[in-house]
Amino acid sequence: MNTMNDVEVIINNKRYTLSGYESGDYLQKIASYINTKHTEFKLMENFNKLDVDMRNILMQINIADDYFKAVNQVNEMDQEADMRGNELFDLKHEVIAAQTKLEALQKEYGKLQNEYNEAQKIIIKLQTELEDSKMK
Amino acid sequence: MNTMNDVEVIINNKRYTLSGYESGDYLQKIASYINTKHTEFKLMENFNKLDVDMRNILMQINIADDYFKAVNQVNEMDQEADMRGNELFDLKHEVIAAQTKLEALQKEYGKLQNEYNEAQKIIIKLQTELEDSKMK
Repeated sequence: MNTMNDVEVIINNKRYTLSGYESGDYLQKIASYINTKHTEFKLMENFNKLDVDMRNILMQINIADDYFKAVNQVNEMDQEADMRGNELFDLKHEVIAAQTKLEALQKEYGKLQNEYNEAQKIIIKLQTELEDSKMK
Repeated sequence: MNTMNDVEVIINNKRYTLSGYESGDYLQKIASYINTKHTEFKLMENFNKLDVDMRNILMQINIADDYFKAVNQVNEMDQEADMRGNELFDLKHEVIAAQTKLEALQKEYGKLQNEYNEAQKIIIKLQTELEDSKMK
């Protein structure tokens, strides 16, 4: 988009040469969009009766309306993105909290397992002592 | 936005009465935006030298360019929103998985606690038996 170029477009059946930094494809897309609007407007009987000044202003307002509606959409999506961002943030913390709890409980479980194993050893030792004691 | 109304706007120093469904405020916003563009364009010496036809087309292209750029932003935000949506989905499942693991481990821990307590009882019983046996 840094090189300046000349692009020829046809708008409303007239040829125009535009110099700019945008790509030829992009300018053709815009020309196509504007032509569609011209076609739509020309189908309206009332539009054709207006003077050229009013017709041009209405065209500008119509395109500007498309623009404002798109900007509105951007703003709404911005707000939604903020909400999603907060949701993500909270969820990430929920995951970390759950994993921390899990790790802590795994540690406790390990300790209890050891204590249980020790208790089992003591039981065996006491059972052996008891049998010895009974045999005497 | 359902009632039709007449709104008077001043664009490029001319008065126009617009009939439409949009609110007066909204149409004034658009008029203000278009006026700003007219002002900017009039500062360009080269622009003023062009014929009225070309000037109108350039104005339309300029506004359409704003529109296309806003639409581009909408599309990019749409893609980002999709990505965030997937991220959220995955994280929600991560939270559920971690909580499920935690609950399972808590159950296991409870069982082990009971078995440990039983082992302690057996130890006490055996110790008592052993003392009794030694006293005989």
